[in-house]
Amino acid sequence: MSSAAAPPHRAYRRLTVEERRTQLLGAALTLFAHRAPDEVSLDEVATVAGVSRPLVYRYFPGGRQQLYEAALRSAAEALIGCFDEPEAGPPTERVQRVLDRYLAFVDEHDTGFSALLRGGGVVGTSRTTAIVDEVRRAAADQILRHLGGMGAGSGPGRRLRMMVRTWIAAVEAASLIWLDEGKRPDAAELRDWLVDQLLGLLATTAATDPETASVVSGLLPWESPSGPAGRLAERLIPVVGGAAHLLPRG
Amino acid sequence: MSSAAAPPHRAYRRLTVEERRTQLLGAALTLFAHRAPDEVSLDEVATVAGVSRPLVYRYFPGGRQQLYEAALRSAAEALIGCFDEPEAGPPTERVQRVLDRYLAFVDEHDTGFSALLRGGGVVGTSRTTAIVDEVRRAAADQILRHLGGMGAGSGPGRRLRMMVRTWIAAVEAASLIWLDEGKRPDAAELRDWLVDQLLGLLATTAATDPETASVVSGLLPWESPSGPAGRLAERLIPVVGGAAHLLPRG
Repeated sequence: MSSAAAPPHRAYRRLTVEERRTQLLGAALTLFAHRAPDEVSLDEVATVAGVSRPLVYRYFPGGRQQLYEAALRSAAEALIGCFDEPEAGPPTERVQRVLDRYLAFVDEHDTGFSALLRGGGVVGTSRTTAIVDEVRRAAADQILRHLGGMGAGSGPGRRLRMMVRTWIAAVEAASLIWLDEGKRPDAAELRDWLVDQLLGLLATTAATDPETASVVSGLLPWESPSGPAGRLAERLIPVVGGAAHLLPRG
Repeated sequence: MSSAAAPPHRAYRRLTVEERRTQLLGAALTLFAHRAPDEVSLDEVATVAGVSRPLVYRYFPGGRQQLYEAALRSAAEALIGCFDEPEAGPPTERVQRVLDRYLAFVDEHDTGFSALLRGGGVVGTSRTTAIVDEVRRAAADQILRHLGGMGAGSGPGRRLRMMVRTWIAAVEAASLIWLDEGKRPDAAELRDWLVDQLLGLLATTAATDPETASVVSGLLPWESPSGPAGRLAERLIPVVGGAAHLLPRG
């Protein structure tokens, strides 16, 4: 018998416990991507995975809630992975790459991503909230690292950390609106706008917070006229031109 | 018998159905301000309101969930009221006044505010999520009105509305962090920073979106050197000084 003609149940039997678990979580995430978690049944997970319903229950005896939490934990790990970026090159370009991966994740998980962040479903519990908060914290730590706001032995200043956390909330909100609006504008344009938002936040926060000002001073030499910060600076000239009456004379 | 010495049950009997309901909701909101909603019992609401437990059940036969949703709806109306501001004077100063009222609300409702926005409790349902979304939508509409982004007969552009909604998400996130961090910095400093964030968002969004650019052009003549936009512009000078190498020469 050639391997191409091997009956499905042979492949089925060869999966290890871990592989089987991964397969079932993958099937669940595919379903959650298109429908709210509380509309997905274990029967459907079994159908999509091509296995029996008792098998799904053997792996997730707690039923839908347990499956959802396991799928969520697996998605949370993937999402945290999006923020993993080497400390090399201009920080704005690192943030661009992080956002490209993040928006690809949002695009792929779609309805499941909305349902999770919107909460309120039967599956939202303090445990699912804790998992989402863990992702937010990890994302903030990574962004702070790239901004140079976490020097050896010293944590970031209160205001800088608060700034990064509010930016992450803005990114989340923008992602949800993006999904609601049929993924318009395209992901690259949304990414550029989110990077611009971070630069705007850094500048306005540096205006009143000395620690953020020192972080901005450390970031600027990395940037070039052709990079994200340069493009924004050039496009801001006409906007700022209208604000000349606000500046002190001389 | 003087009115000062009137026994409590006399005042008790005089309340109309609507007054009684308001009293019970007030007692519930006081309790929710200090403990998570699912830790508050109807017995405690009865004690704080100085009424019997059966009376609380007569008004809220659905128990804690119904009381919570009613209290939430009453809080949502108060919160929407914070965003109600006459269209007069510099728009940044209108936003300051809106934020002053909003932050006073957050300060007063404290734990109840966090629990509601964090979700995940036993009381979070699709109905409570819908109420919170209604507040967000109303807040966005009000802010857009003050920015001049809702001209007669035409809705705001997609990008401008998305910008205001991401700012509202940032305001929410900042409020939650503020509560977590023992309400530091003080409310006035937080308010000024949130106004700066809105100005930064307007400028960076105007850099790539023509409609936002036209809204910014319409806003700038309202602003003066001593107002929020003027203060920010002056403080941005040293920050922007470090970015000269990003601009095209000549």
